[in-house]
Amino acid sequence: MSTHDSELRIGMIGYSFMGAAHSQAWRTVNRVYDLPARVRMAKICGRDAAKVAEAADRLGWDAHTTDWRALVNSDDIDVVDICTPGDSHAEIALAALAAGKHVICEKPLANTVDEARAMTAAAATAAAAGVRSMCGFNYRRVPAVALMRQLVAEGRLGTIRHVRATYLQDWIVDPQFPLVWRLEKDKAGSGALGDIGAHIIDLTQYVTGQRITGVSAVTETFVKERPLPGASSGLAAEVDGDATATGTVTVDDAAIFVARLDDGALATYEATRFATGRKNALRVEINGSLGSVVFDLERLNELEFYDATRPTAEQGFARILVTEAEHPYMAAWWPPGHIIGYEHSFTHEMRDFVEAVATGVDPTPSFADALQVQLVLDAVTRSAELGSQWTDVEPALAALAV
Amino acid sequence: MSTHDSELRIGMIGYSFMGAAHSQAWRTVNRVYDLPARVRMAKICGRDAAKVAEAADRLGWDAHTTDWRALVNSDDIDVVDICTPGDSHAEIALAALAAGKHVICEKPLANTVDEARAMTAAAATAAAAGVRSMCGFNYRRVPAVALMRQLVAEGRLGTIRHVRATYLQDWIVDPQFPLVWRLEKDKAGSGALGDIGAHIIDLTQYVTGQRITGVSAVTETFVKERPLPGASSGLAAEVDGDATATGTVTVDDAAIFVARLDDGALATYEATRFATGRKNALRVEINGSLGSVVFDLERLNELEFYDATRPTAEQGFARILVTEAEHPYMAAWWPPGHIIGYEHSFTHEMRDFVEAVATGVDPTPSFADALQVQLVLDAVTRSAELGSQWTDVEPALAALAV
Amino acid sequence: MSTHDSELRIGMIGYSFMGAAHSQAWRTVNRVYDLPARVRMAKICGRDAAKVAEAADRLGWDAHTTDWRALVNSDDIDVVDICTPGDSHAEIALAALAAGKHVICEKPLANTVDEARAMTAAAATAAAAGVRSMCGFNYRRVPAVALMRQLVAEGRLGTIRHVRATYLQDWIVDPQFPLVWRLEKDKAGSGALGDIGAHIIDLTQYVTGQRITGVSAVTETFVKERPLPGASSGLAAEVDGDATATGTVTVDDAAIFVARLDDGALATYEATRFATGRKNALRVEINGSLGSVVFDLERLNELEFYDATRPTAEQGFARILVTEAEHPYMAAWWPPGHIIGYEHSFTHEMRDFVEAVATGVDPTPSFADALQVQLVLDAVTRSAELGSQWTDVEPALAALAV
Amino acid sequence: MSTHDSELRIGMIGYSFMGAAHSQAWRTVNRVYDLPARVRMAKICGRDAAKVAEAADRLGWDAHTTDWRALVNSDDIDVVDICTPGDSHAEIALAALAAGKHVICEKPLANTVDEARAMTAAAATAAAAGVRSMCGFNYRRVPAVALMRQLVAEGRLGTIRHVRATYLQDWIVDPQFPLVWRLEKDKAGSGALGDIGAHIIDLTQYVTGQRITGVSAVTETFVKERPLPGASSGLAAEVDGDATATGTVTVDDAAIFVARLDDGALATYEATRFATGRKNALRVEINGSLGSVVFDLERLNELEFYDATRPTAEQGFARILVTEAEHPYMAAWWPPGHIIGYEHSFTHEMRDFVEAVATGVDPTPSFADALQVQLVLDAVTRSAELGSQWTDVEPALAALAV
Repeated sequence: MSTHDSELRIGMIGYSFMGAAHSQAWRTVNRVYDLPARVRMAKICGRDAAKVAEAADRLGWDAHTTDWRALVNSDDIDVVDICTPGDSHAEIALAALAAGKHVICEKPLANTVDEARAMTAAAATAAAAGVRSMCGFNYRRVPAVALMRQLVAEGRLGTIRHVRATYLQDWIVDPQFPLVWRLEKDKAGSGALGDIGAHIIDLTQYVTGQRITGVSAVTETFVKERPLPGASSGLAAEVDGDATATGTVTVDDAAIFVARLDDGALATYEATRFATGRKNALRVEINGSLGSVVFDLERLNELEFYDATRPTAEQGFARILVTEAEHPYMAAWWPPGHIIGYEHSFTHEMRDFVEAVATGVDPTPSFADALQVQLVLDAVTRSAELGSQWTDVEPALAALAV
Repeated sequence: MSTHDSELRIGMIGYSFMGAAHSQAWRTVNRVYDLPARVRMAKICGRDAAKVAEAADRLGWDAHTTDWRALVNSDDIDVVDICTPGDSHAEIALAALAAGKHVICEKPLANTVDEARAMTAAAATAAAAGVRSMCGFNYRRVPAVALMRQLVAEGRLGTIRHVRATYLQDWIVDPQFPLVWRLEKDKAGSGALGDIGAHIIDLTQYVTGQRITGVSAVTETFVKERPLPGASSGLAAEVDGDATATGTVTVDDAAIFVARLDDGALATYEATRFATGRKNALRVEINGSLGSVVFDLERLNELEFYDATRPTAEQGFARILVTEAEHPYMAAWWPPGHIIGYEHSFTHEMRDFVEAVATGVDPTPSFADALQVQLVLDAVTRSAELGSQWTDVEPALAALAV
Repeated sequence: MSTHDSELRIGMIGYSFMGAAHSQAWRTVNRVYDLPARVRMAKICGRDAAKVAEAADRLGWDAHTTDWRALVNSDDIDVVDICTPGDSHAEIALAALAAGKHVICEKPLANTVDEARAMTAAAATAAAAGVRSMCGFNYRRVPAVALMRQLVAEGRLGTIRHVRATYLQDWIVDPQFPLVWRLEKDKAGSGALGDIGAHIIDLTQYVTGQRITGVSAVTETFVKERPLPGASSGLAAEVDGDATATGTVTVDDAAIFVARLDDGALATYEATRFATGRKNALRVEINGSLGSVVFDLERLNELEFYDATRPTAEQGFARILVTEAEHPYMAAWWPPGHIIGYEHSFTHEMRDFVEAVATGVDPTPSFADALQVQLVLDAVTRSAELGSQWTDVEPALAALAV
Repeated sequence: MSTHDSELRIGMIGYSFMGAAHSQAWRTVNRVYDLPARVRMAKICGRDAAKVAEAADRLGWDAHTTDWRALVNSDDIDVVDICTPGDSHAEIALAALAAGKHVICEKPLANTVDEARAMTAAAATAAAAGVRSMCGFNYRRVPAVALMRQLVAEGRLGTIRHVRATYLQDWIVDPQFPLVWRLEKDKAGSGALGDIGAHIIDLTQYVTGQRITGVSAVTETFVKERPLPGASSGLAAEVDGDATATGTVTVDDAAIFVARLDDGALATYEATRFATGRKNALRVEINGSLGSVVFDLERLNELEFYDATRPTAEQGFARILVTEAEHPYMAAWWPPGHIIGYEHSFTHEMRDFVEAVATGVDPTPSFADALQVQLVLDAVTRSAELGSQWTDVEPALAALAV
């Protein structure tokens, strides 16, 4: 490991939706936060030489390459940022850690539990040598989410009784929307479950400080055949010119499950891409014996907090505008009431990552945390395959022991 | 049956929360709606002579009695309105139907499937003789709910993909809240499940026109011992003076389940009395291929409707204030924007009941409809007992055949 | 004065929108509240014999008449309830008070300041003889409004800095909507200003406990000619068959004004019938040095309260669902979260009126309070006529002295 | 003018709140939008050598200086970006335009009408030589605001009847908040009026395409003496150590006014820093004969649109999440539902500015547009001084003719 005179040279692999979001965060993080190291957007990597060159120019990277193995082994790189589809996470991460590079890897950590186990083991080994790794559950760094966790941790909600979490989108409601990589199991691992369900699993466990111990699940693929895709960007895509060619959707369109948390709470989860009108509706409500909190990602600058210890006649869900200097991450931004956007969650993520690396501590969520999410996803998948049979989540520790 | 010169003489059994709500509706219905018959609040019945006398005076009934059998057999009564706890519904309804009285029975129809079957069979027999019966799922008559059903029936939502329904309350979060009859299985049948879960089961099936075919459920009793109760009114109650005496809660505090509807939609349901800050939060969202609707009973004069056939740049959830003359039930009330309350759902219920009886047609929801809800409740209970095992809902017809 | 064995015999004049609303309140008030007197809906009066007979039957009055003078002088009447257009308020009220009848008079008290002065003087004289009078600003009795006043009175808002009040409707946006009585100055006194502006003037003065001292105003009539009306009910109306006949609108469609309150606060007011999409949007926000409150009549069961004395990170507008037993008027109604409607404000009004009369105290708002509102309306009208010139509100006391 | 091989070299003066916001926009604009020129963050200027050096380093500027005259005359600068307090706008802008630099100047354009006139005249002269100028009313570039304008321009609202606009903040409610430059007339020109009132004046005129023709206003300074300030950043500030020293507030704390637009609409405006709980509540509602729109800057990704041409039973305020590719500025950002923040309005502003300069057209809002806002501010101030007397807004053209 080298921090090169307090500079962290980033090598990013992938330049699509996540690549653009991470680029904006790397570009911004030192401009907003006073940190012990500065980042350099050193090199970007992608499979298509022309496209990665264009991306490097547009997104502002010093250099570009199509050879990710060269990148992760380069002496000019301190941090490897993995923004590729899930099927390549394990291979890249393992190589990067082996090369002594700090790794930040997009979620979900991997497409299978076995891969996630291997990555977690490698991360543990690397950590002993001072090499840091982190999985990119960026929503933990939304200030309102961090505030939720703080309130729970301070006991303001009392004993947690209920969690209800949904992540609703609608971008494939149209049966003519094409078969993009996110709808193919070999690339994406799973559908709504792994893509967005993983976020609410991680977020609710993070906020409550509790683990999901078991689930009973139903998954469904509403549209089983779709046209083959042409070009795509972000989540948008066009159908291939040859309109008659179709392919089979091999992932879930939607996943719903009931669950228990390890401290006795009941929970419901839903992840779907078929909720017409819901664009990015990650919504979480948590009820405790002393209070409740509600969060909605489409209004990510707000947190609703119900404090049942207040006089009865004054109790109500308070809409906290989470834009005060007293709120997590916000002192560095704009005056009160001046809201931030989706991309800022990545700026906060990079802030914490840079600080952890520069000061020599392990950032969170760790690969082990991400493995635990993977184990929940796995339990959901197995329960759904077994006709909703109650399925215990395998303990992460046991998994690591393998 | 006699309608006594277009007068319907009501005999009501029970005078607590539901009794007061029904009384207000009976008192109001002919003052607002022009109907083919007028109701007379003829007689009220309760077990405690002093209390029922007081209730008759306060609520405005012509007479009172403690003998429900005499009431249901009286020549001076045309309609029997059953507002008692669930454990006496079957006995009273069967006697009333046998006596040729029209029956309106509060939900849930009964405490067991067997009772509900017997009542449904008796109702079918009575209907052949022109005797009408109806189960009081009053929320069907909230104008916004009726509007939702209308939109679905007109195909405005397209193919239904998702139903998510919660009924959240918080009145027993405090472990010192006493053991009222609603927390005792022998009187209430079940807890949150039958009391409020029944409402969202009926409502979502009514609105979608689809049936729940199977469920996977979890139930929980968070607080298992409670002080014995003193006096109670509505849902409020006081602890008995002898504070050391406690009893065992024999019903569920909360029930959550995933389900499938018969046309392929996925659904999640949650009924709880432990959602701190949620007072009467019956919330339903339905997503279809062409649109979505959202309803919240705490804002019962509003309906949100997302129409995905509008130009993309203008699509959004429209908050419809359901107070126009064009909306169901509303032409008879106040000018636009002048909202109605919870109790009005009963006025609408009585309006439809009176009209059905006076014009000789069967009102809805029928006892058969209510039996089907009972079968879903039964499936939920069995699934929860069997460790969330997927449990098919027994078809109502088969049930009737028994 | 006689209370006739604790019975108050009501004689109501007018049977249209307000008549129906008051009838529902008189019918309900003793069924919900335990009061020292019971009301009897003794007699209803209207100009059209057939229509008043129909109204008496439908609304449930014992008798009916077309002779209001006979009614106010009858020995069988204890209370005169005036629900007619504003041009007859003064004549009826003066006669009723002279006859020793308690009077409840719909708002605005009168069409002119002179009439209001005379009525206030008569009420003061009558009060000395134990005859009570009250003006029907029903929104004071919305529980959330009463709670607002309570919070202000307890100092929870600190020094009041800002009031912003709007009452927005849209029922005459269509230029083809006919020229109903509410659009004629000789019957209605003024347009949006007196009809709905009066409500926000009274409500904000009531809640803050402060008086408007001066105003600068603009009024406008957007549509100056309208078809003549046919039948009407509530606020709805149909155009006369002879579609070519039109008449001139002689009242304001909208009135806006800035104001100062006597303790230094700034205020903005707007009353309009041309706010497309706003049906009954009486909205009030009050900002003080320690907190703020927000109320919206379309969501009348809710109050937003911002408490700036809470820890900064937790401050937010709390949506209080004003349905708890601890809230004004609500203990007698339904369980928490079971909302009430527009009409209930009248039930509460009648509750307070009956209690005041039966216990021998003067109810509020008094005619003097209503005169003060009239003086504000007058200042607004004069300011608008004088090109928005700042116009002091004549002190009510001085007015009374005349 | 030179565009230096399609590069625009920016020289920015000021490095506080606006300087940081503009820097983030300059840094980002070419990374998100494909534009005909690239910007270089060439030089930043400020009065304090140490602070501007620190700012240059932190915000990412190539060079720094304390000599603004040198900067505006440098051959290495193409664009001068003025982010200083209002008292220096005129001098800097005139010098920059004289030196042939394109100018972007923060709002309000100047502290006085005379200065604004001179600047507008200079801009007109410069424009003839291809030198561009623009005033930074950034909120025009909030996508929801641009969508509002589009809906109005397409006639979707019909004839505009009402505008109600508030800009509410609360950062000086505490009387101990110190006397920062924004509270001094010689530096800031005016208080809430010019700082935030200017925004709602510009925004509503922009959206409606109409001008304010006259006003009647009230202004107030609630807290007249304040402690002298120590350090400040953004809108936050600390009291000077010497707590006994105070100074006089020479600007308004709040300004309210009624107005008429040139096409007959009535309007109300309010700008205040004393609205407890309102942090950045720029809210605008516009009612037309065919529809209405509502915007709230604290939820800047949303627009409410009421379309009165829809079937009555379906009409409602639709909450449009303005995050679709079909919405103004949004195609370049994230997938639907992924919200943007306050700072993005500046990115959009710079996008349009760069495009205008590079393609040789005049950007908007022009200095002439900003002068018109200044004339409204002036009318408001004069009306308030003359006891709310109705005051016509001087026509901008006449003003220019001087």
